[in-house]
Formats: sequence, structure tokens, C-alpha cells
Amino acid sequence: MTTSRLVDVRRGVLEGNDAWAAHLRARFSSSGTRAVNLVSSPGTGKTALLEVLLTRMARTCGVAALVGDCATDNDAVRLARSGAPVRQIVTEGLCHLEAHLIDAHLATIDLNATDVLFIENVGNLVCPAAYDLGESLRVVLLSVTEGEDKPLKYPAMFSSSDLAVITKVDLAEAVDFDRSAALAALQSVHPGMPVVETSARTGVGVDALIAHLLPIHTDIS
Amino acid sequence: MTTSRLVDVRRGVLEGNDAWAAHLRARFSSSGTRAVNLVSSPGTGKTALLEVLLTRMARTCGVAALVGDCATDNDAVRLARSGAPVRQIVTEGLCHLEAHLIDAHLATIDLNATDVLFIENVGNLVCPAAYDLGESLRVVLLSVTEGEDKPLKYPAMFSSSDLAVITKVDLAEAVDFDRSAALAALQSVHPGMPVVETSARTGVGVDALIAHLLPIHTDIS
Repeated sequence: MTTSRLVDVRRGVLEGNDAWAAHLRARFSSSGTRAVNLVSSPGTGKTALLEVLLTRMARTCGVAALVGDCATDNDAVRLARSGAPVRQIVTEGLCHLEAHLIDAHLATIDLNATDVLFIENVGNLVCPAAYDLGESLRVVLLSVTEGEDKPLKYPAMFSSSDLAVITKVDLAEAVDFDRSAALAALQSVHPGMPVVETSARTGVGVDALIAHLLPIHTDIS
Repeated sequence: MTTSRLVDVRRGVLEGNDAWAAHLRARFSSSGTRAVNLVSSPGTGKTALLEVLLTRMARTCGVAALVGDCATDNDAVRLARSGAPVRQIVTEGLCHLEAHLIDAHLATIDLNATDVLFIENVGNLVCPAAYDLGESLRVVLLSVTEGEDKPLKYPAMFSSSDLAVITKVDLAEAVDFDRSAALAALQSVHPGMPVVETSARTGVGVDALIAHLLPIHTDIS
């Protein structure tokens, strides 16, 4: 296996994904759906935050979620408690979601009734960066327990995201979180990227995050 | 790009890696070096734990470390404080270490003086599972802040590891860690796998972990 042949193969996979992503983007545009791709390391708290978001947002707009995991449907079971439509995508070991998997799992979601479609990616700070899912917004999560330099170590993910969410801020003191260092690392990798600080446990920052997620001029009050 | 062609390409990459890994295993055997491959999600605390391990173990045996990251040499700089030989492997976006990268970075490590060689993999609970690095021991870390069901969601990594280390146990109470659920998830995916519970901050469990890492009959007292 030569390196150049491997690069060619990877390029072919990404080009195929881009074609599917363009198709998805057209579907979302046609139905007026905003797709939000949530990416992070495993354990950053994507599911906990999504549970709060779905519950709050379902009161005022149409929300749904697709959740990707290598194995188990634990997340879909947990998120279904919000009352929103939730579908599990089991990747069977694949380390990221691809656009054709999204397309295949939309059959039972009514996109015309969905203002915001959340896509919870597989927990992985590397591979999902290269796969466009037709989203309007890519949101990268970073928990206070992970270490402030993660943006520097995983620059592709943080530079390709539109918004950063710092999670578990209720634990900041317990883990000696250096907020200035984390914000500096984020701005160094992606200058100007907006950052929202949240806790799914206390609810702090959730309304500010929702304001970023909704299409402009939607009234959430 | 057909799926079958992609599977063939992946198989070719893994077969190439296996050949390099066999070469590495022979090198380690010849020098009497035990290679320990540390794998986990980003932010689980591999580097913090490795810093404590290198510092303690360097008193009584030969230790060295190779540390992999997509970008930056932050970890090598931090670990060099231990006094042990440490080399950074920057993967430039690659989501895992491969055996040929290990081989290429051993030139300036004296294996004959190294009883235990730590290899800190890229933070990723999926892709590194498939890549043999010639190690004697694969150690998977799981922090109390990540969620107890991670072994169920990332079964390939946990079932391919020889030892599990629960990290950051000093935070267990702050995050409502369900120890029984985590142990049950580990045993469900890998029955009989030994588990050590540690905190790099307080030092708890570090001696028990060292006993697992050293070749049998090595005296660490």
C-alpha cells in the first residue's frame, strides 16, 4: 500500500461524502431545517447538553435529533425522554458519521416540522472534522475536565467549527480549570469563533446557547 | 468508491502495520523492554498519569516515553520534567499511532537501558484499537468524568486492552460517578479484565498500577 494510493482512496471517500452532504443541504434548505452537528471528545457531555436543549426548545419550535455511536442505543433511549423525535445511528465501529448515514436515517423524521435538527456525532476529536454532514452549524464542545490545550492538539476540529461550547462549568473549580488559557487556545486556533460557557447540570448558559442555535429572528421567549 | 474496495484498502493498511508491529515486538524482546500502549479519549488524563509514573518508576528502573498528538509538542515538554527520555510524535492530523511511526522515533532511545517504554497514543477511543504497536500491554484509561457507559459505546478499544485504569477518582463524588455501573460496563465488554482505580493528583492507586506495568518479579520497593 503506497501512501499516494491511500491518499487517493481517502480523497475518493471524502468526495463521495461531499456529494451526499450537498444533497442533504438541499433537503434541509427546502424544509427550512437548520442542521446542527455536535462534535467533541467522548465524555464531554454532548448527550447531557442535548437532553436539556431538546426539552427546552421543544416548547417553542420543532426539534429532532440523530445520535451516532459506535455501539449501543443508550443515547437515543435517554434523549427520547425529552419527547422530541430521536433516532440512533449505530456506526458499528466507524469512528465518525458520514452524510449518507444521515440521509438513511431521515426517513422517519418529518423535516417540514423540524426547525432544528441536531446531529450528535461519534465522540472523536479527529475524524469527524473531515466529514461535512450538510449542517448549517458545526458546534464543538470542550469540557472543563479535559485540559485547556485540546484546541491546540486537535486544530482541525476546532478550526472547522462555527461555535465552541465549554461544558461542565459547574466543575471548573474542582478541576482547577484555567478559563483564560482555554479561551486563548480557542482563539489561537480559530480567531473570532464565538464561545458559550454552559452547564447541563445547573442550566447556566443554555439560553445563550439556544440563541446561537436558532435561525435569526426566531423568538424563544 | 465501492465499500468492498475501501475494505480491501483498510485491510492492506492494517496488514502493513502488523508487519511493522512484529518487527517492533522482536526489537523490544531483544532489548528486554516492555512496551505499554496507553489509549483513551482526549482529556482522560494520560499525560498527567504518565508524568507521575515516569517520575516514580525512574528511581528504580529504566523508563522512557513516546507521546503521540495530532499537533503540538506540549506533552513531551511537560513529561521531560520527569527526567526520563521522552520523544514527541506529531501525527499531523492522523487519528492514531502506527507501528512504523514508533520505529522511526526509537533512534534516539537506548532500548537496552529501557525496562518499560510508554507509548501515549493519540486521544481517540476508536481508531487506535486496530493498530498493534508491538506492545506487551495495552492499557485503556477511563476517567470518572466521562460517563460510566463508555466501554459499551467503544467496545473494540476496551475489549482489545489488557488492563483498564479508572482515572481522576478524586473527582468521583463531584461528578456523581457510579462506580458499580462503570465496573459492570468494563466486565461486560471484557470479562476478567483487571481494573486499577487511580488519581494522578492524590497519587492513590499509582503503586498498584506500577505493579501491573512492571515485568513479573521486578522489585519496586
